[in-house]
Amino acid sequence: MYDMAIELHTDGSRRLYEQIYDYIKTEIRDGKLLAGERLPSTRSLAEYLQVARSTVEYAYGQLLSEGYIESRPYRGYFVCAMEGLLCMEEPADREEVDRPSADAYSISDGNAEGEKVECNYNFSPHEIDMSGFPFGVWRKITRNILTYGNSELFARGEAQGDYDLRETVSRYLHSSRGVNCEPEQIIVGAGNDYLLMLLEKILGRQVRIAMENPTYIRTYRIFHSFAYDIVTVDMDECGMRTDCLVRENASAAYVMPSHQFPMGIVMPIGRRMELLKWAAGREGRYLIEDDYDSEFRYCGKPIPALMASDKQGKVIYIGTFSKAIAPAIRVSFMVLPQALLERYRRECSFYSCTVSRIDQRILNEFIRDGYFERHLNKMRKIYRAKQELLLRCLEPFRDKFEVSGENTGLHLILTSREDVAEEELLGRAEREGVRVYGLSESIVEEFHRRATVLIGFGGMTQEQIAEGMKRLEKAWL
Amino acid sequence: MYDMAIELHTDGSRRLYEQIYDYIKTEIRDGKLLAGERLPSTRSLAEYLQVARSTVEYAYGQLLSEGYIESRPYRGYFVCAMEGLLCMEEPADREEVDRPSADAYSISDGNAEGEKVECNYNFSPHEIDMSGFPFGVWRKITRNILTYGNSELFARGEAQGDYDLRETVSRYLHSSRGVNCEPEQIIVGAGNDYLLMLLEKILGRQVRIAMENPTYIRTYRIFHSFAYDIVTVDMDECGMRTDCLVRENASAAYVMPSHQFPMGIVMPIGRRMELLKWAAGREGRYLIEDDYDSEFRYCGKPIPALMASDKQGKVIYIGTFSKAIAPAIRVSFMVLPQALLERYRRECSFYSCTVSRIDQRILNEFIRDGYFERHLNKMRKIYRAKQELLLRCLEPFRDKFEVSGENTGLHLILTSREDVAEEELLGRAEREGVRVYGLSESIVEEFHRRATVLIGFGGMTQEQIAEGMKRLEKAWL
Repeated sequence: MYDMAIELHTDGSRRLYEQIYDYIKTEIRDGKLLAGERLPSTRSLAEYLQVARSTVEYAYGQLLSEGYIESRPYRGYFVCAMEGLLCMEEPADREEVDRPSADAYSISDGNAEGEKVECNYNFSPHEIDMSGFPFGVWRKITRNILTYGNSELFARGEAQGDYDLRETVSRYLHSSRGVNCEPEQIIVGAGNDYLLMLLEKILGRQVRIAMENPTYIRTYRIFHSFAYDIVTVDMDECGMRTDCLVRENASAAYVMPSHQFPMGIVMPIGRRMELLKWAAGREGRYLIEDDYDSEFRYCGKPIPALMASDKQGKVIYIGTFSKAIAPAIRVSFMVLPQALLERYRRECSFYSCTVSRIDQRILNEFIRDGYFERHLNKMRKIYRAKQELLLRCLEPFRDKFEVSGENTGLHLILTSREDVAEEELLGRAEREGVRVYGLSESIVEEFHRRATVLIGFGGMTQEQIAEGMKRLEKAWL
Repeated sequence: MYDMAIELHTDGSRRLYEQIYDYIKTEIRDGKLLAGERLPSTRSLAEYLQVARSTVEYAYGQLLSEGYIESRPYRGYFVCAMEGLLCMEEPADREEVDRPSADAYSISDGNAEGEKVECNYNFSPHEIDMSGFPFGVWRKITRNILTYGNSELFARGEAQGDYDLRETVSRYLHSSRGVNCEPEQIIVGAGNDYLLMLLEKILGRQVRIAMENPTYIRTYRIFHSFAYDIVTVDMDECGMRTDCLVRENASAAYVMPSHQFPMGIVMPIGRRMELLKWAAGREGRYLIEDDYDSEFRYCGKPIPALMASDKQGKVIYIGTFSKAIAPAIRVSFMVLPQALLERYRRECSFYSCTVSRIDQRILNEFIRDGYFERHLNKMRKIYRAKQELLLRCLEPFRDKFEVSGENTGLHLILTSREDVAEEELLGRAEREGVRVYGLSESIVEEFHRRATVLIGFGGMTQEQIAEGMKRLEKAWL
């Protein structure tokens, strides 16, 4: 067993867990702790250092989440292989590192190859923390699946997705989103974009669709490419204004009730009821509920999906595992109300499923065996810690900016109290090496408003957040 | 080492390799050879039995391809685990087995759940042999990829697919299909159906598309769901008749020049040139080349793709790994000519890639490291042997039926010389427990013709083929 002779400063200048975390990280980086080496158990290290066991656990958790160490069941904690570390390094004090977190996710990536971002501190609202990804579990499940005994997995599967996975998803939706649906109503597909393409085939071409303004611009572009007749509807602090919606002759409305992007609004039950009433008002009207990141809520009880309140088959629910697990997994799902399900079966069921059956099976076991739940708990903790840090860093900004969107999700919203242009704020940040995102990127039709920026924290390490915010302070205050 | 006391009959009544193959298979099935047990090396068994080493290799190859044994590098051959065997068992002499090969692939699967097929001998033209799938290699590649060092793989990738994979595909297209294209022209997608959906967004809605009659009915359904204006064009022995095509005011034509489905026609160079000339005759005209199973050609040299002859950017090429590797892999690709590539970039590049980056990486290594080539060689041999057997079994049918389509692909075509209805033939076969496929399933507009059936052999074992054909003889002759 490796002896951790950590000199802890107990004068309160730095937190104990941070000192343990820093010490071990430095030891690993400097090659003093080698890949594969076992760390002392949390209990023995806590005894040795005379600190609470939870302090060591917290430090280990941080190292785990950042990919420095891994946990092996019944065996303990081990140092990860170096290649793993290289790409996890935060570039806090290095000028040469130009892309701390890949920007492929950016909403502004209009071109296929993606633009290089020169900024070292990219507060993208679309990035997630991949360091917490449970590679070990994923690898184990995969290994067990890829055997001769499962060769039927390599044949073409059901068009809607494997029944087992749909059953697991329906259980998950019931327990965590309050949605009661049958596996028969679920269609598994390779990402939301694909499911929207399929939905176009189901809803048909003559759709007049209402969207909030601002909204998730990727979806706007997709509807635009369908040549849908898009009407924008104003928002208030509860989300889409139904008094405006009723004036439009729309046949569908696209909403994100659990966490509106970009405004971060959680739609209250009253507004939800109004929307459902609007949809029920005419045959063929539907609400498209995009529940893209409902998993990450930091305060209060989880709020059920809009579909959970739908008694009349008016909600089309779209969920994804891209945010909660990893974008590369490419598994999303859509829950159709009965009437649309019949239309899908009649007119679209010959489209083959776009998700590999192997991936479907891996995901199914990942959820079914409780790994997903554990992963979510872990990520929620990680994101909460990042958000708390970001909120602390934002304290000095509160004179000049209003901060909102802190209940849920992976970004916060800053609205300027002064008369300053959005581009001016972005430009000043950029000159300090910080990239934040203007609300204008999410705006379909510009309107009179204060300069507003989104600050995402999902893909940033705590160090990056701290240093990036220091620079932003210099840029803006 | 297990001693194989095989009594070989050398009177010529049965081939030596077959006797060895049968003996070992029976030993495994009867549990005398257990999972994980090592077989003697081919050399030592050949010496022991006093036969040529190639005879043993052939027997082992057959056992390998049917999943009874597996080969481990540097270690030899081992008996596979029993679960693996259960699903590989051919039901030759068992009444209770009702689905020797899943029918999810059938072109007639109009409903999402797929219909149960009661026939024990399903000569589906759409099934492939999965027993040859290199699980070991796939598992090894997967294991190496799923590490912390590759965590960037779990982030969202390029919309067109990972550049490395596109580079590998472009090299493969060059060497095996004669196509010269840049990785920039390639779009990777989750299956042909998806790529066609994307193509709809690129080509737009006002497309009048020419299709052969008969054609691949799945694609017909997809174009139909796009509300494309579909015109059917008659075929002759060279494929789509250009003299008929020029009379239609079509803006695109969908063809399968390497192996027309279902007729099995390989389009000669003269007709190809005529098609290219037609396309060049007006701006905005395109040929959609579906090269779905060009890998399996049994005689003569491989014939380059139509795109290889295209000098004017008129061909949209669609290829897939579903046939050559496994349907579940869900990786297809589309090569766009320059003009359409620009339109794609302008209007559609915000659609995220539908294939998981992990799967892309696995496939890339599989092709790049030569496993794909080896796999194809192996499968070509397996399919050739099955086709030869089927052709032998078809000898007694030649008085009553014309046999065609033997140059390439995974099915043969029987055209009746007599005045009998197609349904009559199918019905008589079905009563003997044999399912063959009527040409009518591929017909868009019925025309005067002889009864024609497709007999696929890809998904059948040799035993199934032999027994199924015996029954078909009873049904039809």
